[in-house]
Amino acid sequence: MRAALIDGKAIGAKLRAEVAVQANKLANEGWQPKLVSVSVGDTSAAELYVRNQQKQANSAGVDFEARNYPAETSLEQLIGILQGLNGDPRVNGIIIQRPLPDHIPVKVLQKAVHPLKDVEGMHPASIGNIVYNDLALGPCTAVAAVEILKTLPLQMEGLNVTVIGHSEIVGKPIAFLLMGLGATVTVCHHMTRSVAMHSRAADAVFVAVGKPGLVTGDMLKPGAALIDIGINRIDTPEGPRTVGDADMASCAEVAGWITPVPGGVGPVTVATLMKNAVLATQMQMDHYRGAYAQTDV
Amino acid sequence: MRAALIDGKAIGAKLRAEVAVQANKLANEGWQPKLVSVSVGDTSAAELYVRNQQKQANSAGVDFEARNYPAETSLEQLIGILQGLNGDPRVNGIIIQRPLPDHIPVKVLQKAVHPLKDVEGMHPASIGNIVYNDLALGPCTAVAAVEILKTLPLQMEGLNVTVIGHSEIVGKPIAFLLMGLGATVTVCHHMTRSVAMHSRAADAVFVAVGKPGLVTGDMLKPGAALIDIGINRIDTPEGPRTVGDADMASCAEVAGWITPVPGGVGPVTVATLMKNAVLATQMQMDHYRGAYAQTDV
Repeated sequence: MRAALIDGKAIGAKLRAEVAVQANKLANEGWQPKLVSVSVGDTSAAELYVRNQQKQANSAGVDFEARNYPAETSLEQLIGILQGLNGDPRVNGIIIQRPLPDHIPVKVLQKAVHPLKDVEGMHPASIGNIVYNDLALGPCTAVAAVEILKTLPLQMEGLNVTVIGHSEIVGKPIAFLLMGLGATVTVCHHMTRSVAMHSRAADAVFVAVGKPGLVTGDMLKPGAALIDIGINRIDTPEGPRTVGDADMASCAEVAGWITPVPGGVGPVTVATLMKNAVLATQMQMDHYRGAYAQTDV
Repeated sequence: MRAALIDGKAIGAKLRAEVAVQANKLANEGWQPKLVSVSVGDTSAAELYVRNQQKQANSAGVDFEARNYPAETSLEQLIGILQGLNGDPRVNGIIIQRPLPDHIPVKVLQKAVHPLKDVEGMHPASIGNIVYNDLALGPCTAVAAVEILKTLPLQMEGLNVTVIGHSEIVGKPIAFLLMGLGATVTVCHHMTRSVAMHSRAADAVFVAVGKPGLVTGDMLKPGAALIDIGINRIDTPEGPRTVGDADMASCAEVAGWITPVPGGVGPVTVATLMKNAVLATQMQMDHYRGAYAQTDV
């Protein structure tokens, strides 16, 4: 074992502590940050996740309200509910928990969240603002993965990075965020002729595909950073386990740094959600103040 | 000279003819597509460009109105003008001509154009929708450059592409568009350690930097496609000339296909603007019909 394990829990805790300071400052000005989580139908799959968000919100000074709606709720009703939350000054951020029932298209709900309350960073306008390098609410997992890389002693400008996986909410946003930091980025995916050719040339590799064992040590440059975003449940002789997309044993022999799963990107992602809650509250405060400043009395 | 020259004028003319058919169909349903061009202050720099748009609009069956506002027009007045155009059912697309006077931030104006009338594809929501692979109004130059590549006998899935230049409105959107088509994309820029290392590995190279002679033949893989998006005015012993970012003489010895400047990406870009005018009109028609269909009588 050569690679240093990156401690996502410690990075997440540090971020949450910073968020708590800002949340407290906002609360003192009358803007206590508050998140509302919206689940629809059978919530058992997301329950553990929501409870974890609730706990981390508490420790970050962010109010958190979990709402569950019955599986029969129509799309029109849900959009109405979101419009109500958009217009409610006590709500600063809206989380739409997945999975949703089959009759509810997730993208339509995500677009119905006002961009200023889009703490998950899923609205097309949020994604577009990241491309424009504007301060904006970024997709939490992508932002968290990049924040982890930034904790390493690597110069971002000119860094050769390969991103494996080009999903809209993880792989692609990671690519723009890295471009914004000056890295040279290659994005690979299931149609790439030789992923190994690209990953071997990289100083840092991000993988977000959802296939256990996809990245092996021979696909890495010695000393490279490996940020593993995959979360897979597998069965082992010792029972079910959660693993990432990297073959840990072989990758750890070659990489310089590696994120464990669990305990890597996950905790930083939830802390990033809290950071977005504070950012969203700040933007809403600025927006509110701007609106009143313009009025001639 | 080995490379085949790509005829942008012919590709643009074909696209315009397709647009004309759709524009005519829309006009027959009461939705004649119409563009409004907004210039502010000294218009001499953009004049030739606007006149060319006007001419191409005519040949594509798209109405075109060029408006000029005095240099003293305030940002607030311009936003008011754009809001008026957003709310005018006779206007389907708004073009903001650059350069603008110094007191007018271009991004603020671009955001003030309604996403459904954003025929230049500059609104953050338009950019975000491209990331999401949704049918949307894409930034014209980026869309045009990718359309040119699609005319070549190359399989997009798995194609190794290097994009040189990572501007928000050209390089980055080209990257997402290509990812959406299944290409493996590397984006290089002024901080990249070795552009040649990446460009030499590529089956297709896009360059959009604005530096004459930036790409030379030794930076290309034999037979690669080179799409040159640069537009530079240079002085030569024979007088001023317009050239791209490629060193034409050396690149043409190595590349398989190459776009000339002028006559490459430029004509396809203007044709793409007309295509966006028709797409925008269609989206507005669908939006209008959808709004009425929802009313219970």
